[in-house]
Amino acid sequence: MSGYEVINIGALDQWRAHFGGFTDKTQRQGRRVIEQSMDMQFIGMSVNAMAPGEQAGYWHAHSEIEELYVFLDGEGEMALDDEVLPVTAGSTVRVGQHVRRTWRCTQDSPTPLKWLCIRAGGESLAEIPTDAKRDTQTPMPW
Amino acid sequence: MSGYEVINIGALDQWRAHFGGFTDKTQRQGRRVIEQSMDMQFIGMSVNAMAPGEQAGYWHAHSEIEELYVFLDGEGEMALDDEVLPVTAGSTVRVGQHVRRTWRCTQDSPTPLKWLCIRAGGESLAEIPTDAKRDTQTPMPW
Repeated sequence: MSGYEVINIGALDQWRAHFGGFTDKTQRQGRRVIEQSMDMQFIGMSVNAMAPGEQAGYWHAHSEIEELYVFLDGEGEMALDDEVLPVTAGSTVRVGQHVRRTWRCTQDSPTPLKWLCIRAGGESLAEIPTDAKRDTQTPMPW
Repeated sequence: MSGYEVINIGALDQWRAHFGGFTDKTQRQGRRVIEQSMDMQFIGMSVNAMAPGEQAGYWHAHSEIEELYVFLDGEGEMALDDEVLPVTAGSTVRVGQHVRRTWRCTQDSPTPLKWLCIRAGGESLAEIPTDAKRDTQTPMPW
């Protein structure tokens, strides 16, 4: 898959409002998945903005994919197995296979928590079946 | 490679100054390569800040790796084969194999051009030999 393609995800201070302007399937409140907007071969990425007090509300882990979370604005917490870490602009978290994770934007964050979640595995994305396992039963760690 | 690891790349408005504070091999003026700061399995990423008037000064292409450029601040131009595109906060550019590329921060950009360059191929990073070919002979397109 050669060639190139350009999309616009909006400036950081417009992220959440910008997502709201989309009407295709890539739209979800606070989240945009770029490989639903253009064909990607190996790299997946979601663009995320979570308001103060919001949280994922579930844990998840991947069996094949490595994820890299790059936090760019706001204040929050990320739980990784038994550890809860503060995250803010500049926090960059690599998460390997089978690590359980969840996150929230803290109530007193001055801005929404904004981050990119980058994904890749050892195959093209198309060859990796859905490898995420969601756990909605285990309580949140905060 | 399971487990997780956290590093801090600094807030967006501190990127270039923040890079300057590093003394390990990840430091290069305006650029930080995160897989030189922590072990990465599939995903590579550089964090870049280029001052107004600066440019890469060379073209390059990859034979195996897909790249995703996520521009977050500043104003610049990216050349992709025969096309020159304006880029600014929100511009997100997927580049496939063999596409020749170069970039610059325009002279009148109000801030440095800042972007993440994300890389992945169909193998673990360790199994992909250096697949970038640099061309320092072809003139810049601007």
